[in-house]
Amino acid sequence: MANSFVQVSPDSHFSLQNLPYGIFHPRDAAADQPSPRPGVAIGDYVLDLSAIASAGLFDGPILKSSSECFLQTTLNAFLQLGRPAWKEARATIQKLLSADEPTLRDNASLRKKSLFPMSEVEMLLPTVIGDYTDFFSSMHHAKNCGTIFRGPENAIPVNWFHLPIAYHGRASSIVISGTDIIRPRGQGYPISDSPPSFGPSKKMDFELEMAAIVGPGNELGKPVNVNEALDHIFGLVLMNDWSARDIQAWEYVPLGPFLGKSFGTTISPWIVTLDALEPFSCDAPNQVPNPLPYLAESKHKNYDIPLQVWIKPAGQNDPFLVTKSNFNNLYWTLSQQVAHHTINGCNLRPGDLLGTGTISGPEPDSLGCLLELTWNGKNLLDLNGVSRHFLEDGDEVIFSACCKGNNYNVGFGKCSGKILPAHP
Amino acid sequence: MANSFVQVSPDSHFSLQNLPYGIFHPRDAAADQPSPRPGVAIGDYVLDLSAIASAGLFDGPILKSSSECFLQTTLNAFLQLGRPAWKEARATIQKLLSADEPTLRDNASLRKKSLFPMSEVEMLLPTVIGDYTDFFSSMHHAKNCGTIFRGPENAIPVNWFHLPIAYHGRASSIVISGTDIIRPRGQGYPISDSPPSFGPSKKMDFELEMAAIVGPGNELGKPVNVNEALDHIFGLVLMNDWSARDIQAWEYVPLGPFLGKSFGTTISPWIVTLDALEPFSCDAPNQVPNPLPYLAESKHKNYDIPLQVWIKPAGQNDPFLVTKSNFNNLYWTLSQQVAHHTINGCNLRPGDLLGTGTISGPEPDSLGCLLELTWNGKNLLDLNGVSRHFLEDGDEVIFSACCKGNNYNVGFGKCSGKILPAHP
Ligand SMILES: [Ca+2]
Ligand SMILES: [Ca+2]
Ligand SMILES: [Mg+2]
Ligand SMILES: [Mg+2]
Ligand code: NI
Repeated sequence: MANSFVQVSPDSHFSLQNLPYGIFHPRDAAADQPSPRPGVAIGDYVLDLSAIASAGLFDGPILKSSSECFLQTTLNAFLQLGRPAWKEARATIQKLLSADEPTLRDNASLRKKSLFPMSEVEMLLPTVIGDYTDFFSSMHHAKNCGTIFRGPENAIPVNWFHLPIAYHGRASSIVISGTDIIRPRGQGYPISDSPPSFGPSKKMDFELEMAAIVGPGNELGKPVNVNEALDHIFGLVLMNDWSARDIQAWEYVPLGPFLGKSFGTTISPWIVTLDALEPFSCDAPNQVPNPLPYLAESKHKNYDIPLQVWIKPAGQNDPFLVTKSNFNNLYWTLSQQVAHHTINGCNLRPGDLLGTGTISGPEPDSLGCLLELTWNGKNLLDLNGVSRHFLEDGDEVIFSACCKGNNYNVGFGKCSGKILPAHP
Repeated sequence: MANSFVQVSPDSHFSLQNLPYGIFHPRDAAADQPSPRPGVAIGDYVLDLSAIASAGLFDGPILKSSSECFLQTTLNAFLQLGRPAWKEARATIQKLLSADEPTLRDNASLRKKSLFPMSEVEMLLPTVIGDYTDFFSSMHHAKNCGTIFRGPENAIPVNWFHLPIAYHGRASSIVISGTDIIRPRGQGYPISDSPPSFGPSKKMDFELEMAAIVGPGNELGKPVNVNEALDHIFGLVLMNDWSARDIQAWEYVPLGPFLGKSFGTTISPWIVTLDALEPFSCDAPNQVPNPLPYLAESKHKNYDIPLQVWIKPAGQNDPFLVTKSNFNNLYWTLSQQVAHHTINGCNLRPGDLLGTGTISGPEPDSLGCLLELTWNGKNLLDLNGVSRHFLEDGDEVIFSACCKGNNYNVGFGKCSGKILPAHP
C-alpha cells in the first residue's frame, strides 16, 4: 500500500492502514467554526471529515447521498449506515490521504481547513452510548476472580462455559481518556457485628478491557445470527472499567456489580475499525464443551492485539509497565457476544458499547487488574521503588495497544485516567 | 379546588388535581402537523402543551423564556428545568383548564388546536431514557425470592437491610404500554449432564413495579444529599419488568440478571408528578437497623398508591384481578434510592428511569409476580376457570394504580402488554 503524504513516523499508531474514527474539536475554535465533528487519525494529525464532506469528496455511491453523517457531533449516524458505507468511507479516505493522490495533497486551502495537528484538538466521546454492556469473557480472569471471591473448588461458575456472561453497566459515567476519576465513597463489608464500613474506597482498581462499538444494530425481537454478527460491530476501543473492589464485594450479591463500577469508565478516543484489524485476525480458542447451535460460528476468530498497562504512581515521573496481555486471550468472541446478547430479542443500537470483560492471560505478568496482580491486596505490586496493593490518589493508569504490521502499525493510542481524592 | 371546564367523570384517573405528562401524537396527523409533542391528560382529553406554548400562555417568570421545552419530541428538556419550573407549569395548566378561567374555555379555535380526545392519539415513550436502574426495595419480594432461590435460612441477603440493592437494566428495550412482548428464547439450567436447555422461555412472568423519572440529575462526582433527593424526581409511572425466570435463574450468578429481563420492559405513558401525589404521601416503614448517615433522611416518606394487577388470559374476554398491592410496601424510599445511587459520584441525567423493584405486600393476594404467586410454578393460579403456572402466549397483563382523593382521583391509567409466541 502507498504511504500517506502526511508524515507518519514508524512508531505512530495511526498509519494509512489504520484510519481510526473519533470525535474532536479544535482547542481554540474560533466562534464561527462548527463544534464537535468526526475525524480520522493519520500520523500526528486529525483529518476533519466534516470538511471533507463539505468539499463534496465523499463521492462513492452510498456516501454521496448520505455524507451529512459527517456533519454530526457524534458518529452514531455513520455507524447506522453499516459495513458497505464504512468500507466506502475507508477507501475514499485512504485514497485522499495517499502520497500519489493530488486532490488533498496539492490543495493548500483544503489541507488547512481539514488537517489539524493532534496537539491542537480535544477528543470527545465518539458516540452517544445508549446502552453499555460488560462481558466476562476471559477464562483466566473468571478463574482468578472466582478463586479469590468463592474459593478454588467452584472458581468458574457452572454457566460460564455455556454462555458469555455479561451485565448492564452505567452509560452516563463513561468518560473519554484523560478525564480524572474521583475516588468513590461507599459501603464495604461490616466487621463482625458493626454496621457496614463507609468512606472512600480502599480498593481502587483498574480493569484492562477493550470494547466493541455497535453499528446498525437490530430491531427489538429479532436476534442477530452469530455468522452475521460482525457486521454489527464497527470497531474497537480500549476501556478501563474502574472498579472499587470493597464496594463491589459488599453489594454484588444477588443482582451484580453496581456502585463498585458506576462512578466512571474510561474509553480511548479512537475507534479502530474491524476492517483495519482484519490483517491481525487469528483463530479463537477451541471451546469445550461445544457451544449451543446459536453460538456455534462457522469462522471462530479473534484478533491478535497486544495490550499493555502502565501505572505512573503519584509523584513519579515515569510510568511503569505492569501487564502485557492480548485481546486473543478472550474465550468468547465478539460475534458470540452479539449473538448471545440478542438471542432473547434484545435490541442493540448504533453507538452501544460492549465491553469484553477484563482481559487476563495465563501468565503472572498478563493479569488485567490489581485484584489479580496483588491477589486482592494480599501481595504488593512493585512499581520500580514504590509499591501498591491498590491504586492511590494521584496514580495514573495508562492502557495502550498496538498491532504491528509490515512497516506499519494499527494502534489504539492511549486510554488513561488519574485517580483524584474522594470528596470530603 | 375548582373543577375543569373539560368534563372529568368521577371514575377518571385524570382529574384537574392530577395533570400527568406524556408524549403523544394525533393518530391521523395531517402532514403539516408537528410530530410527537408533550401533553397533559385531563378527563378523556389530552392538552397539547406545544399548542399552549405556541399561544404564549406559559407566561410565568421561568417558562416565559424557556417554553421551547414544550416544542420538543420528548420531556427531557422540561425535566431538566427542575421543580420550580414544574410547579409553575402545573399552576399555569391548572388555571387554564379550570372552569372559571375563560382564556382557553372561551377560545374555540385554541380549544380545537390544543384539546385532543384520548381515543384519537397515540402515546409514545415520554423521555429519552439514558439509563434505566432497577431497585429491589420490597422486603416481602426479597424474602420470597430469596426463599425460592436460596432457601429460607438465608432468604434475605445480609446487605439488603443496609443499602437499597439495585442493578442496571437495559434501556433500549423499554416500550410503552400496549406494545406486544415477544416471548424470549434462551438457555436454562441443564438437567444433570445434558447441555443447557434452549428454546422459548417456559417461565414468563411479570413484575409489578413503579418507576421514578429523574429530573435535573447531578454532575459526575457530586452525590445528591438524601434530603434534597426528591427534587431530582419528577414523577412516577407504572412499570412491568417482564422476566423470564428460567433464563434468569441460569444466567444470574455472579453478575446479575441480563437476558432474563432485557427482552422488554413496559412503562405506562403518563408521568404522575410528585406534586400531584403529595396529598397521598405517608410515613415510610421504620428501618431497623438504622441506615448509615448518608441514607438517614429527615422526612422518611412514602406514597399511598393502591396497585392492581389483572391478567386477561388468552382467548378470554375479561381480565381477572390477581394482585392488590401498594407503593407504600417499599422499605427503601425514592430519596434513599437516589442518595444511594449517587453516593459514589454516579451521575443521573434527566429522563433516567429508576424502577422500584417488584412491589409485593405481606398478604398472599398482594404478591407482585407469578414467581411468588405460584411459588416458582409449584402452585396453580386460578383465573376464573383457567389456570396458570406462568404466562402463556396471548395472555395480557394489565397494571393499574389510582389514588382516591375527596371527589377526585390521581391515577396512572394502565400499563399493559400481551405475550406473543417466540419467533420460530
Ligand atoms: Ca469489567
Ligand atoms: Ca425487577
Ligand atoms: Mg466502570
Ligand atoms: Mg425487563
Ligand atoms: Ni406512531
